[in-house]
This record gives sequence, structure tokens and C-alpha cells, in this order.
Amino acid sequence: MIKVGIVGYGNLGKGVHSAVENAQDLKLVGIFTRRNVQDIKPIIETKVYSVNELEKFKGKIDVLLLCGGSATDLPNTTINYLKDFNTVDSFDTHAKIPDYYKKLEKVAKANKKLCAISIGWDPGLFSIARELFGAVLPNGNDYTFWGKGVSQGHSDAIRRIEGVIDAVQFTVPIDSAVNRVKKGLNPTLSAGEKHSRECFVAVKDDADKKLIEKQIKQMPNYFADYKTTVNFVSQSEVKKIRGKLPHGGFVIRTGESSEKTKDILEFSLKLDSNPEFTGSVLTAYARAIAKMAKEGFTGVMTVYDIPLKYLSSLTNEELRKRVL
Amino acid sequence: MIKVGIVGYGNLGKGVHSAVENAQDLKLVGIFTRRNVQDIKPIIETKVYSVNELEKFKGKIDVLLLCGGSATDLPNTTINYLKDFNTVDSFDTHAKIPDYYKKLEKVAKANKKLCAISIGWDPGLFSIARELFGAVLPNGNDYTFWGKGVSQGHSDAIRRIEGVIDAVQFTVPIDSAVNRVKKGLNPTLSAGEKHSRECFVAVKDDADKKLIEKQIKQMPNYFADYKTTVNFVSQSEVKKIRGKLPHGGFVIRTGESSEKTKDILEFSLKLDSNPEFTGSVLTAYARAIAKMAKEGFTGVMTVYDIPLKYLSSLTNEELRKRVL
Repeated sequence: MIKVGIVGYGNLGKGVHSAVENAQDLKLVGIFTRRNVQDIKPIIETKVYSVNELEKFKGKIDVLLLCGGSATDLPNTTINYLKDFNTVDSFDTHAKIPDYYKKLEKVAKANKKLCAISIGWDPGLFSIARELFGAVLPNGNDYTFWGKGVSQGHSDAIRRIEGVIDAVQFTVPIDSAVNRVKKGLNPTLSAGEKHSRECFVAVKDDADKKLIEKQIKQMPNYFADYKTTVNFVSQSEVKKIRGKLPHGGFVIRTGESSEKTKDILEFSLKLDSNPEFTGSVLTAYARAIAKMAKEGFTGVMTVYDIPLKYLSSLTNEELRKRVL
Repeated sequence: MIKVGIVGYGNLGKGVHSAVENAQDLKLVGIFTRRNVQDIKPIIETKVYSVNELEKFKGKIDVLLLCGGSATDLPNTTINYLKDFNTVDSFDTHAKIPDYYKKLEKVAKANKKLCAISIGWDPGLFSIARELFGAVLPNGNDYTFWGKGVSQGHSDAIRRIEGVIDAVQFTVPIDSAVNRVKKGLNPTLSAGEKHSRECFVAVKDDADKKLIEKQIKQMPNYFADYKTTVNFVSQSEVKKIRGKLPHGGFVIRTGESSEKTKDILEFSLKLDSNPEFTGSVLTAYARAIAKMAKEGFTGVMTVYDIPLKYLSSLTNEELRKRVL
């Protein structure tokens, strides 16, 4: 059995917990939190510890699944965990991945640990699709569309506006753009030409709805460059619409294998729960990291470095016989 | 530059040739044939040699792309090539892969060579999808549908019937089955419930069409278990319908990440030319084998053993920065 620990118990931590329970070859040693241990309510009964107790588990956990956020949490904490443990994380600030990689590589090598970064579905599975598609169809273009799904960053941004009680934002691929891509027209598309943004917002009784709508639609980076619709609904409606945080998307590459010979390659996901699926991906990669660490690998890996056989609970022989 | 040779120059060999020309980091040393050298008409000007001359190229070719068939060619010839060269092949007789693997592994290890087997889109890219999907969504089922596309084996089978001049057979996924799968109903589907078979047949003037139709529809393994339609057309029509041998298909996995939380994962291909695309995949894996052999790897590999980074002409740093 591969022994794992979960660090951080928000939506993603819970998703990982659920996935680890589904995996017959993984055993959860415990949840580690920076909050008060008694404030953590595990979705399935298990032990909860303070992160300060992690030291005691050195040598007793094969992989730590780091479930903190990419903005401030992972960049500051992963290095410390990596000194004593192999780790898997979902660092998803694309622009900062090279720096993050470099920093961790030093620590991992110095401490003979193995770590997988930027695991999930994007970055992660979609990164696999982009690379694989580009390698097998070099004369072409790829497009990544996200949604229809809840963007937590955009939902948070709306919630920070004065007068807003709760909000949920859906990122929606624009059909006409998708169709042009699928036809192989290789369009040049700005971010705002690929996706629209649908907001469901609950506000205080005395709130100025017109002002809030304007503040949302004009918010730079988040909404200003997109076709944005704002719907005012009740707080309970927001909660219902948000659901389990559905998401998904697709990577499409169209190109030519020779003159006038067109190919369309597509990888798509429709997910009822973004955190649960992301947790499932992290869990498969935790299995890989445990197996590879046992074989002596050290350093930092992304989805490009890990042979796919390590993700499966099947043996290599079974994979060749039953899945290949 | 990675130096490659193409062994065999049928449809697949030509597809590989086209793909190697598209790859800026690969250089074609030559085509090697068992036919008369003067009978080979390369799609792009290049040197053609007899396979008997291969010996002279020992140490001068990084990877041989073996473009023979899986029925009788590859099982008998790969071993000989592998003694002197790293190889990539498209061995696609699923049931015989474990045996083929075992035989080649001995030769590869003894001669310190590296070889990739069963490369293409199925086995190959679809195998990647099946394994990856199973690893990240263990509670679920996957389905592979092929087509709409030309099955060469089935077309050949029709052509062997007395009175038939030419024929092309399309394998077609049955919509109602696909829809049940996409809805996550996890149906149990026989081969004949997943695909139908459309045949376009040109016959001699004096042929007994009724008899030929009966012979096709009752042919065991190939047609008897499927809904089969037979259309009699002219020889030039068959040629036109066959086109560049279009094909494609999709792997779908539906499952639950937790109770009532459904996910749908899909990988699909629509290809104008099956041999050209298969050739493109072989070419990307030839790049990988050349790079890995240089790093000292030996033995037999499938898509499960080769880290994806090796497929790309980009450096690892570029992949992390631009594609991840």
C-alpha cells in the first residue's frame, strides 16, 4: 500500500480525500491542516493533525498531496514539505511554472526527494493533449477552451465588491469561435473572442445593482475584455447554481498531415465537480511519484516527465495485455 | 539531426515519408524495400535501397521506422532489424502484443538497442487515452469506437470474393450506442451493437450480385455479427469513395468521482488519411526513441513507457514555459 498524506483541506483537499478512498492501493495516513484540528470535518472519518506534527511522519508517508492554493500558499510552503517528503501539487499559475520548477528542483535534488508539480486537468491532462497533439501533427494550431464551468477566481473577484453577499461565475466557450476552430479555419482569437462570462450574484437589499453590474463588467483582466452577463438572484439560488463546482473544457488541434489532408484531434472533459476530478488526477500522480521514488528517481517532474504506466494500478504486463 | 530510415513503402511507408519531411529535426537517410528498387516511386525524391543493403548503414541510422504489416511481416522481420538498429513499429494485433513484446525484449537487451512497438493511433494514442482515463477515473467504464473510416482488412476480405473487382468498407459507429455511452448509462455492447459496416463493391459484368452480397454478409468474424449494407458501384466510384483512406474514432470514459458526481472524458480523432496520420505518430515516436537511445535506454517500449517530453521537438524548458 502507498501511504499518503493530505495537506490542506479546502475543496481540493476534500476532492483528493474522496479519490484516495476510491484507490485500492493507496492508504491515507491523515489530513494535515494549518487550521485548528478540531475545525476540520473530514468527508470520511480519518485522522487530522496540525501541519506542525508533520515532522513526526518523516519516513512514514510516501507522498504528500499538497492541496493549497497557487497564489500564495504553494510557492511559499512546498519547499519546506519537499525537504522531508515526496510531494504532488496543482500549481497552476502558468507564467510562474518555470521559476517554481527551478526553485523546487534544487531542494528536491539536495534532499533526494521526488515531486510532481502542476498536476490536475489544466495544467495537467490538457497539457498532455497540447504536447501530444503538437508532436503528432506539427503543421497545425491548437486551441484550449474552458467551460462551461465555475471559475473560482472570478467568483471571488465579484464577492469582493461592496454590497455583494455571494456570487458564482461561469466561463462559457463561445459557440461561433468553437465552430470556426472545428472547421479548421485556424482563426486568431483573443481571450474575449473565445469565452464569455455569466455571473449570478446575490446582493444586499439596499445594494445599488446598476453600480455593481458596472463594477463587474468594467473590472480589468477579469471581465472588461469579455462579453459579460450579470444576473441578480437570491443567495440560496447562487448556492444551488454553484453546485459541486462543475467544469470542463477541451483542447482541439486542427492541421494538415500533408497538403489538403486535414486532421482534427480533440480531448474533452465534462466534470460534475472540478475539485473532485482535480483530486483524482493528483491521486493518480501520487501513485506514480511513490512508485518512481521507490525506483530511485529524484527531482521535479511535470506530466511530460512521468511515463504513463506509473499512473495505473495495473502492472505493466496487464497494461500491455488489456489496455494497449 | 536525427537520422531515420523507412523500411517498407506501402501506404504507411508513404505516410511516414510525408511526416519525416514535415519534421525539421529528422533527416531521412533512405527507403529500404524488399521489392525491386526501381519499382519504388517515392512521393518526394529520396534514395531507395534494397533491404539487403541495410547492413552497410549500421551506425549511420538512429532509428528504423518499420512500415510492414502486422499479420506476417513485422512478427518475422523486426527481430532481425533490431539486432543492428533501434526501431519503431505499428504492430497492431492486440492479442499478440504480449508475445511480440517478450520476443523483442530479449533481442533488444542482448544487442543494447531500443525499440517502440504498437505505435499509431490504436494501439497508440487511443491506448494512452484508455490508460490515462482509467487511472484518473477508476470508477467508470471506457468505450472505444472506430470510424467512420475505411477498414483495410475488411476491404481486402471483400476483394477476395469471386467476381469482385474492387471494394472499400467503412466501419461506422452506431449513433444510438454512442448516445447511450455519452449519457453515462454504461451499456454492455457487443461488437455488432457498437459498429455497422458499409461496403462499396465493384463487380465483374457477369457477377451474381445477390450471391456476392450474401457471401459478404455471412462472412464469419468480418461481417456476420454486424449490420452490414452492400452497395454495388463502379470501379472508379470505389476508388473515389476510398479517397485517402479516411478514419478516426473516439475513446470515451464515463464514471463517478464520488456518488452522483459524473464525469465524461473523451479523446477523438477525425483523420483525412489514416496512413499519413499513423505515419506522423510513428515519426514522433522515432524522435523519442532516438533521444532515449542516446541517453542509454535499451529494451522494448510502448506508449506507456515513454515520457511524453521525448515526443516533442521542443526542449523540456520550452515545454514547461509554452505548452504546460
